[in-house]
Amino acid sequence: MARPRLSEKTRQRLLEEGVSAFLYNGFHGTGLKEVLDRVKVPKGSFYNYFESKEAFAVAAIHHYAACFAAKMEQAISDAPDPYSGLRHFFEALMADFETAGYVGGCLIANLGGELEGSELCRESLATAFRQWRDRVAEVLRQSQQRGLVRADLDAGDLADLLTEAWEGAVIRMKIERSLEPPRRVLSRLLDDYFRP
Amino acid sequence: MARPRLSEKTRQRLLEEGVSAFLYNGFHGTGLKEVLDRVKVPKGSFYNYFESKEAFAVAAIHHYAACFAAKMEQAISDAPDPYSGLRHFFEALMADFETAGYVGGCLIANLGGELEGSELCRESLATAFRQWRDRVAEVLRQSQQRGLVRADLDAGDLADLLTEAWEGAVIRMKIERSLEPPRRVLSRLLDDYFRP
Repeated sequence: MARPRLSEKTRQRLLEEGVSAFLYNGFHGTGLKEVLDRVKVPKGSFYNYFESKEAFAVAAIHHYAACFAAKMEQAISDAPDPYSGLRHFFEALMADFETAGYVGGCLIANLGGELEGSELCRESLATAFRQWRDRVAEVLRQSQQRGLVRADLDAGDLADLLTEAWEGAVIRMKIERSLEPPRRVLSRLLDDYFRP
Repeated sequence: MARPRLSEKTRQRLLEEGVSAFLYNGFHGTGLKEVLDRVKVPKGSFYNYFESKEAFAVAAIHHYAACFAAKMEQAISDAPDPYSGLRHFFEALMADFETAGYVGGCLIANLGGELEGSELCRESLATAFRQWRDRVAEVLRQSQQRGLVRADLDAGDLADLLTEAWEGAVIRMKIERSLEPPRRVLSRLLDDYFRP
């Protein structure tokens, strides 16, 4: 059998369209045909890239998590201190939500709500959530060392609360079509509860 | 045309199966046929009860919200004070999650993540979330009056944070198949941040 000719560029475009489709339409609501039409890839060759729709979703979760992490690192490295960096990162996410008209939100929460049936996707979502939470914990720990965050509570515990409250607020943002919920979470936690 | 014979009992059973199907499989992942087979209702008569799958989802959201609210009222009326009642309510939800093996979670968050396309469902979800948040705010206000909750912060703001963090923690519970996230949210907020 001839080895299929794979293009890294096509794979990337499939992933980008996949993230967007899963984000807006969910796992079950996403049709592969629609994604393939956008990238102009015939259905047959899709399976050279991904074994199944489930494997495609797993790869999309990884891709989304990597972009998300890169965006956070950028915001942190551009900021005068890690705590402002974290805030700028959330503000950048909110600016994207506003541009999108409060639809979409967070792929991790959306698929987490829906993906009861897929153990593979569940594991990828768990890894993605954990990595994000761990990086936030690290930033909060550094902020504690600089006296920017209260040091009497564990940075990991604060990171759990912040990431979970953020996800819940983003769901509510989608339901209410308003940026108020995520905005409020930041001011309640970052500007009040987490302060020394 | 003969008026279709509608049974309130059948409607209730359809709603109960609908809540369960939407909770576990999401909107797009729910097949009407599956629901109808369980209730032993032919497809034709389904449309005597609900105009469409979307209308069925709206009714399921109302039904879920009403059961959720009744469960909360029961916990509050059984408790020595509203703050313990709120805690017992969350503990009862966690006991249900444990029994279910951490699948399912909260219908509002699950459908909120997925339902970009339906303005009707979005409005029902917004109403359901709002009613829940308002009732929690009321309980927190009463708890403030009794000196059980800090009075320097607005009860509505605390209710926003608690309900959103809870929803995010329930999503994470599903992703990690663990009760730790909701348990942590309660201890972080109810036992620490909200205390006088």
